[in-house]
Amino acid sequence: MEKQKVAVIGAGSWGTALAMVLADNAHEVQLWSHKFEQVEEINSSHTNDKYLPGISLPENIIGYSSLGEALEGVKYVILAVPTKAIRDVSAQILAELKQSVIMVHVSKGIEPNTLLRITEMIKEEMPSSLLEEVVVLSGPSHAEEVSLRQPTTVTVSSEDLSAAEKVQDLFINQNFRVYTNPDVIGVEIGGALKNIIALAAGMTDGLGYGDNAKAALITRGLAEIARLGTKMGANPLTFSGLAGIGDLIVTCTSVHSRNWRAGNMLGKGQKLDQVLENMGMVVEGVRTTKAAYQLAEKYDVSMPITHALYNVLFNNADVEDAVDELMNRMKKHEMEDLVNVLDERMND
Amino acid sequence: MEKQKVAVIGAGSWGTALAMVLADNAHEVQLWSHKFEQVEEINSSHTNDKYLPGISLPENIIGYSSLGEALEGVKYVILAVPTKAIRDVSAQILAELKQSVIMVHVSKGIEPNTLLRITEMIKEEMPSSLLEEVVVLSGPSHAEEVSLRQPTTVTVSSEDLSAAEKVQDLFINQNFRVYTNPDVIGVEIGGALKNIIALAAGMTDGLGYGDNAKAALITRGLAEIARLGTKMGANPLTFSGLAGIGDLIVTCTSVHSRNWRAGNMLGKGQKLDQVLENMGMVVEGVRTTKAAYQLAEKYDVSMPITHALYNVLFNNADVEDAVDELMNRMKKHEMEDLVNVLDERMND
Repeated sequence: MEKQKVAVIGAGSWGTALAMVLADNAHEVQLWSHKFEQVEEINSSHTNDKYLPGISLPENIIGYSSLGEALEGVKYVILAVPTKAIRDVSAQILAELKQSVIMVHVSKGIEPNTLLRITEMIKEEMPSSLLEEVVVLSGPSHAEEVSLRQPTTVTVSSEDLSAAEKVQDLFINQNFRVYTNPDVIGVEIGGALKNIIALAAGMTDGLGYGDNAKAALITRGLAEIARLGTKMGANPLTFSGLAGIGDLIVTCTSVHSRNWRAGNMLGKGQKLDQVLENMGMVVEGVRTTKAAYQLAEKYDVSMPITHALYNVLFNNADVEDAVDELMNRMKKHEMEDLVNVLDERMND
Repeated sequence: MEKQKVAVIGAGSWGTALAMVLADNAHEVQLWSHKFEQVEEINSSHTNDKYLPGISLPENIIGYSSLGEALEGVKYVILAVPTKAIRDVSAQILAELKQSVIMVHVSKGIEPNTLLRITEMIKEEMPSSLLEEVVVLSGPSHAEEVSLRQPTTVTVSSEDLSAAEKVQDLFINQNFRVYTNPDVIGVEIGGALKNIIALAAGMTDGLGYGDNAKAALITRGLAEIARLGTKMGANPLTFSGLAGIGDLIVTCTSVHSRNWRAGNMLGKGQKLDQVLENMGMVVEGVRTTKAAYQLAEKYDVSMPITHALYNVLFNNADVEDAVDELMNRMKKHEMEDLVNVLDERMND
């Protein structure tokens, strides 16, 4: 692929790691942060120590604190901000854009109340011919490992396959393998809802339960995500892929995961306020639990893990009681739990 | 359920842990081992320190070194021996039996060359009215955690649902949750083939790759198992359940797993002979790789991970080359890899 000017909006760990992939592919990377000192650090010492400690950034990553400058002349905008900042930042981008772009978002969440996916939120905020298309990039990908150039595979998805293929070409290299999947709904739902299961997995670990319990939880979590996603119009196979079970595994079994860590503290008896204060970073799963709880009601889908977690987070339910109830409430015949997924697909 | 006399044949870690579950349910458990000293230890100090170090066994587990005595008066026989001993031990059991029994096997493997599943092997060796039915018990269940009474969920499956339900009643308790699934082929194929993916996961970890690579490998491993299993007549949903993805996750992400440990040593550059010597225990995945390689040929199914591992184990292929090739050979569109599973199901 021809070398491109690309803006990466958001210099957290994931935005910075993706900027490194693009820089490794010799693109000109304009990395925006709203924190002036962070931009200074990126440009002077070529590090971003708070988010990727010990990592040297390639010199073709240039930091910007002016959004207008970061967007100048780019064809692609990588949007790497927390879900709750998506609307604000999208609107700001639209205000500064002078040329049309493909937006690539790499966030994982669902908006509570509106119940919109991130692609939908971006399209609402950027009703303009300057927005050529939105592409989502998702999959099992800890930023720390990507920054160490360890092998990683991700999925890109868009309603416009050719846009997804352009983004695939932009990112793909020997260490960072990119695959396309036409199922935007499945990719976004899988990415968002795995954070709920990661919170729950952290809770079982925090309670001192073992790998057997966690594997059962992940298995049932996947079934629950697939049940909802399929009803929302996703292809059930997506949940067997990188943005489904792949991302779920990596998030639930790795100490890198913020959602797992937050769940772990809850399992050890801390209260939500305390946990969020201790984390000091966004824990997407907390907001997503609220949104998924609402989605389960709207689509009339049984989501016992989401339900239990909602009660722990927002109704002060006891963590141990909630997990024990989950372990004991499965139907007697496993297929009764699983088969709904396919039933719903068949009835489409 | 009425209290039963149950024989557990094989006092390795899994047989002993299952004996403990049965003893917790107040059944009379007759635990057989061919090692006289082990039987002595079980009966005198109520421990089995080589296999479950530090664990106290309930006193209603009685050790036997005579197979005939261990089988006396039992209605259920739990067969907990390595796959390669299944035929021998089944034949010995038949020779000693005086009453009809339900056999429950808890092993995971496929016989090379004949390509038979364990249920099929047992039925071949016990062509008798004394064999009422064979039931398989499988799922994400490290013996160590079961012996600590940590929450665990497993699946039981049989061609005769009522036999599976009896075995469910026999084992189920607050910590050990048992679900039935009518798909014997899927449960046995899922259990057997996950050991191949665990070997491969150990290899990527041994090579120093991270969680991102491992999650991609597990995701693709599941697709590969489901492709084969579905062609063999399994229900594809089984691979999304406890005996599929559940068992795969626990085996690939836990240091308890022998197959993972063996793969890890291979990844670090040891040769197969060395690894098997160092392990000192059966590594089912090695034989299963050979059988799965043959199954892939027989059913004409693409199984790239099995293929790569076969070449490492038996054709002296370089570990790093094999893993790198796996990372890079996936199709450009993820769905091309995944969709075969459902296609094959639809064509049934």
